[in-house]
Amino acid sequence: MTQKLSIIKIGGNVIENKTELSKFLKLFADFDGFKILVHGGGKLATQLATKLGIESKMVDGRRITDAETLEVITMVYAGLTNKNIVAQLQANKCNAIGLSGADGNAILAHKRPVEEIDYGFAGDVDGVNKKMISKLLKADLTPVFCAMSHDGHGQLLNTNADTIAAEVAIHMSSFYDTTLYYCFEKKGVLKDISDEDSVIAQIDNPSYTKLLSEGIIADGMIPKIDNCFNAIERGVEKVCIGHHSMLDSKNELFTTITI
Amino acid sequence: MTQKLSIIKIGGNVIENKTELSKFLKLFADFDGFKILVHGGGKLATQLATKLGIESKMVDGRRITDAETLEVITMVYAGLTNKNIVAQLQANKCNAIGLSGADGNAILAHKRPVEEIDYGFAGDVDGVNKKMISKLLKADLTPVFCAMSHDGHGQLLNTNADTIAAEVAIHMSSFYDTTLYYCFEKKGVLKDISDEDSVIAQIDNPSYTKLLSEGIIADGMIPKIDNCFNAIERGVEKVCIGHHSMLDSKNELFTTITI
Repeated sequence: MTQKLSIIKIGGNVIENKTELSKFLKLFADFDGFKILVHGGGKLATQLATKLGIESKMVDGRRITDAETLEVITMVYAGLTNKNIVAQLQANKCNAIGLSGADGNAILAHKRPVEEIDYGFAGDVDGVNKKMISKLLKADLTPVFCAMSHDGHGQLLNTNADTIAAEVAIHMSSFYDTTLYYCFEKKGVLKDISDEDSVIAQIDNPSYTKLLSEGIIADGMIPKIDNCFNAIERGVEKVCIGHHSMLDSKNELFTTITI
Repeated sequence: MTQKLSIIKIGGNVIENKTELSKFLKLFADFDGFKILVHGGGKLATQLATKLGIESKMVDGRRITDAETLEVITMVYAGLTNKNIVAQLQANKCNAIGLSGADGNAILAHKRPVEEIDYGFAGDVDGVNKKMISKLLKADLTPVFCAMSHDGHGQLLNTNADTIAAEVAIHMSSFYDTTLYYCFEKKGVLKDISDEDSVIAQIDNPSYTKLLSEGIIADGMIPKIDNCFNAIERGVEKVCIGHHSMLDSKNELFTTITI
């Protein structure tokens, strides 16, 4: 029987809130089976950039990563955030090991080609070193990825944490029964945006088509869910979307996406 | 037969000079056998602290690590410096994995007790997770340590890179024939401080006593060499001191310290 592996992604809302982060890390440490954490960077990088007088450039909500910004990101994501998460997981008896995509050649990417917009040092993922990651898991280590990749020629690259999580999950699914958990502010995908508890328990391909046609899933939620279906179509068993408290086995209120 | 392992420590003089660092990393990547790199932080942390308006406090050449300074160190040592070294080693086909002492519970320490001086978040090493490090080596990974430890209770700590290198070498020597390389500005321990080429090829216990009594080894060099003898007495095969070009097999001009 194939072993289970959970890839869990947390975003800025958890990282920036010490109490929430501490609660989440306890849940994560206690979570059964092989697991991998992927964390975004949150506002800390922007705050540090501001302190250093570096202007944060965004286009359509995406960061433009110039050389100075890449340095800030490397310091905040791979340094401050990653190592504090690792140290706290260790305190919770989870043998975490912090990684960027350069470490162990974990996540290989190429610099996004310049078309209409020059995103700078942004990396589009080409591959995940699933054998190396599997060796770490078998050595009882729990990988903690920050949202960085590398190009194999010495260049670190900034890569979206959702993408890192999806790509790691997709590639690891050839070795493991892989579940991808996207943690965010809401309890799940909502039927009624004004009702926090109107969580849709399960979405599959036919029901997604229906939800789209009814306009229940709209706007920013569409690319998120498209991303989940992409992961499922490429081998991931299921994707769960919800508040990080969904890692608590007593909590059943979150959205599961399957084929 | 026990396998050989080399622990190589580089300091700020290499890290701060892009050309030298690039030369060193090529030599390191080509260096035969199991190996571990330990790097200090150099002036980058002080420079970042200055930019952020954080005063760098030093007492007798040792940094006082307050909470703000620890954040800066975590960003620079574990983030910027460590990840750029790892990415460059990957470009040189060396499968490097960057680690702080928290990663994989690699280096456990306790906060230095406050006596006459409060060093802040400075860590004195209690143990090295030699089994975990050995698993990484056997998985064809090359650990790259920055000069940080943790206390196992969620606190990162600043630990001198020379100490990290010595402790890793000492603990790994129960599994491997371990050689510790300290790279610094000079070609080795000099007989005549004004002659850069007057390198003493070999120092053992009797010759060290003689060199001390003659005043040839004096001042700052004494604690350095005491540190080397400490490593040898605790199981390290030999310690080499010299310029990083000593990693080039054609170079025979450096100092070897043995019992």
